[in-house]
Amino acid sequence: MLAARPIDFYFDFSSPYSYIASEWIEALALIGASFQVSGLKPQVELPLKREYALLDFERSARFAGVPLTLPAHFPIPTQNAARIFWWLNDGAGPDRARDWARYALRAYFTRGVDLSDPAALDALGTGFGLESGQAEAVYSDAAWKLRLKAVNEAAIAHGVFGVPYFVVDGTPFWGNDRRAQLERWLEKGPF
Amino acid sequence: MLAARPIDFYFDFSSPYSYIASEWIEALALIGASFQVSGLKPQVELPLKREYALLDFERSARFAGVPLTLPAHFPIPTQNAARIFWWLNDGAGPDRARDWARYALRAYFTRGVDLSDPAALDALGTGFGLESGQAEAVYSDAAWKLRLKAVNEAAIAHGVFGVPYFVVDGTPFWGNDRRAQLERWLEKGPF
Repeated sequence: MLAARPIDFYFDFSSPYSYIASEWIEALALIGASFQVSGLKPQVELPLKREYALLDFERSARFAGVPLTLPAHFPIPTQNAARIFWWLNDGAGPDRARDWARYALRAYFTRGVDLSDPAALDALGTGFGLESGQAEAVYSDAAWKLRLKAVNEAAIAHGVFGVPYFVVDGTPFWGNDRRAQLERWLEKGPF
Repeated sequence: MLAARPIDFYFDFSSPYSYIASEWIEALALIGASFQVSGLKPQVELPLKREYALLDFERSARFAGVPLTLPAHFPIPTQNAARIFWWLNDGAGPDRARDWARYALRAYFTRGVDLSDPAALDALGTGFGLESGQAEAVYSDAAWKLRLKAVNEAAIAHGVFGVPYFVVDGTPFWGNDRRAQLERWLEKGPF
């Protein structure tokens, strides 16, 4: 069936719209979206735009029926969580990496767990089933720093300029707010 | 009824998403949206983002069922069309100004009429019922230049940082892609 086509889903751990999209993307894709942490930095926002964005994050979450409380520390650098994602992906497989993505996104966007704080990230890791210290061992490792850097460069080479970003049938859709267009595409084909 | 509340609709003549929104906004507002030309300049886009935007303009128009052909000259400065809008608004009333907005947006986004070209704008003006030369007399007049500048400054003071931008019940919505949220707000109230 049409809706069973794979979707490449680029996201970032510090992006509220990525979090919201991560909660509905799998239902759309059915056989599972391929999660890709882009490692892109949050856009620098105009002050006026930032004020609106804070309102819009929470309203868009309510509109999607997704629980979201904007974290006290926002945005934050999330490269460490992203390095753990790729370590899991390459070692334990994409399903385990995706579970980590969901786990960390929910922790940050519903409970305000600061993914940039070493102690908080270690505790989150043990809650996920890692040994204490494992998180730091991964994100401090030059190999996983390089892996994330390469993934970031590949995303940019594929035209990804922001997240969430979806590619289906080679065609890009940018933004949580393209959900309805993506649904139409999956259900009825290209338009 | 809820849906009869007025909406302030900020737009720009060079904005494809403003054009698309202008085609559905009135049906939502029922008693008529208040059109406000912001005079804001188009955002400077990253090259990658521009390529996606060109695809997304046309796809979003098809999704909304609105005819759109991206003009050969895009984006263009549209202050002159905006000055005519405010001249009509202040002299002939907001309905006539809104008709001009629709007329000029459709001319630009379906037939590629270059609103920045004096001859094309004069011809468009006569098609709208103005005398030949009237368009230039208006947009060259310091009074209408000042009027647009003041409107632009007021928009920024109200928090408008991009278009299309909607305000209903004092609450902002930014972007053609907030249509579904705006519809829910109008039908069922704040969320």
